[in-house]
Amino acid sequence: MAPRCNHCGASAEIYLDYARLNLCPACFKKFFEKKVKSTVSKYGMIKPGDKVLVAASGGKDSSALLFALKQLYPDVELKALHINLGIFGYSDECEQKFRELVEDLGVDFVVFDLREELGISMDDFRRTVYRRRLCSPCGTIKRYLMNKLAYEGGFTKLATGHNLDDVAEVLLNNYLHGKVEQLVRLKPVLPSIHPKSVAKIKPLWETTEMEDLLYASYQGIPFRTVECPLSAGTRSLRWKRLINDVAGKVRGFKHTFVKSHVNKVLPLLERSTPLPPLVECKSCGMPSSSETCAFCRRIQLVRGPA
Amino acid sequence: MAPRCNHCGASAEIYLDYARLNLCPACFKKFFEKKVKSTVSKYGMIKPGDKVLVAASGGKDSSALLFALKQLYPDVELKALHINLGIFGYSDECEQKFRELVEDLGVDFVVFDLREELGISMDDFRRTVYRRRLCSPCGTIKRYLMNKLAYEGGFTKLATGHNLDDVAEVLLNNYLHGKVEQLVRLKPVLPSIHPKSVAKIKPLWETTEMEDLLYASYQGIPFRTVECPLSAGTRSLRWKRLINDVAGKVRGFKHTFVKSHVNKVLPLLERSTPLPPLVECKSCGMPSSSETCAFCRRIQLVRGPA
Repeated sequence: MAPRCNHCGASAEIYLDYARLNLCPACFKKFFEKKVKSTVSKYGMIKPGDKVLVAASGGKDSSALLFALKQLYPDVELKALHINLGIFGYSDECEQKFRELVEDLGVDFVVFDLREELGISMDDFRRTVYRRRLCSPCGTIKRYLMNKLAYEGGFTKLATGHNLDDVAEVLLNNYLHGKVEQLVRLKPVLPSIHPKSVAKIKPLWETTEMEDLLYASYQGIPFRTVECPLSAGTRSLRWKRLINDVAGKVRGFKHTFVKSHVNKVLPLLERSTPLPPLVECKSCGMPSSSETCAFCRRIQLVRGPA
Repeated sequence: MAPRCNHCGASAEIYLDYARLNLCPACFKKFFEKKVKSTVSKYGMIKPGDKVLVAASGGKDSSALLFALKQLYPDVELKALHINLGIFGYSDECEQKFRELVEDLGVDFVVFDLREELGISMDDFRRTVYRRRLCSPCGTIKRYLMNKLAYEGGFTKLATGHNLDDVAEVLLNNYLHGKVEQLVRLKPVLPSIHPKSVAKIKPLWETTEMEDLLYASYQGIPFRTVECPLSAGTRSLRWKRLINDVAGKVRGFKHTFVKSHVNKVLPLLERSTPLPPLVECKSCGMPSSSETCAFCRRIQLVRGPA
């Protein structure tokens, strides 16, 4: 006999191993939204008067995020930001799905197209990268642009769709390699540390990748189904599989690991890790830990000497 | 064709994946001893004039430790300590192997028999433990007695056979559960923090369980082959298997993880984690973080009200 939903007794479709919970689709959607709301409230992510820019890639996580925030906070000023990275066979579908979603939701939005705005695309970065993967420069570009556009638009919060699997993967890697500067920045809310830096919030901090996927599917949210051709087989994906293997043997591994970091280890690390002083990039004026910021250095590498 | 020893060109019998190294038995023995010597020297574990008590359980790790220390430091004052825990079908073989080893080596030794000295054995602890496993009270008893006997014998160092696998397992568990007090004590040398506490050293901090086993086997060192009947299927053994699975996919996982902890994360945690104040146990006078020390509380539980 099919298992019953632990909340309403209907036929269950979902089993959440970490919570030992069987749920039907309707109760799962409520469960998911309650969880996001609880994360937002626990960490004080959204406060009255906040203007929130939601970075949405067209993927399941950030699409689920945008959808859930719109349901949960109908009165908060939300705007969706999409960055078209110009990756052949990928970025245009991402933008398409993003546009379908914001139209469905009636959410105000902006699209930043790398080729149109900067004259270059992520594909152009290939020749500047010595290792095989472009995830690191792509992350730099996205983080810079998201913050800059949030700052210029007068937003008080920038929301991203990082999920529990993302966090657990980065956490284990940072512990493994002792990356303490990154460890102290791995938190659900990263407050503004410079007048031109906007506070970052991660409302999906406590939902798994699988939960985001299920929520997006059950809500009929449009999201991309193609994988980024530049990230296939990356370290990050291998690590996530590995961590899921561990979670399959140690119930709640990801949840416990991330919670212990935030509640117990992080406060001690923060007390003894001074933040690097930020200056303004001599080229673009945005916050930077070096004379020229990482974004400008990456862009100059691609464009070549002026 | 069989692989060749990377050091001497003879036929190799051992492949160390983390170091991508093929070795013959003779070169492996040198490699192992060089590694132990390097660990001892790097962390300043043994200094001229030190009197070292080596805790030896009769198992492969501590037997390899005692043997290697005797070879490497013939001029250092060494004494071997064995604690007979009184576990049926196990402890007597452990003591037997210990006695064979110290006789072979001509090392001065002492055996502390729980039944003779305290009138109780680990088997008596069963009825005081609500969970299935006795590893936790057994650890308390052993740590207490090792320190007490080292202190009373005037030793300056207490050496134990904890290996890299032990450390990686405890490390991951402490991070997982955010056990910060334990994290700051997980280090190759634990200095004395009370006049009655003797400094602890772990010279096998950088050798794996497999390396200890190979060294003990190739040197013909006697060690127990039975497993502790009280520890079969414990959490610790499951975790070690799990970590070895990860290390099979991420080369050098255990080495990198432990090294990053010691060099990068630990110094920051130590700076912000005050050590709990130690008092003297009102019952036995040994150092304790509470009025009555954990050892005395355990013993009183077994003996019942006076």
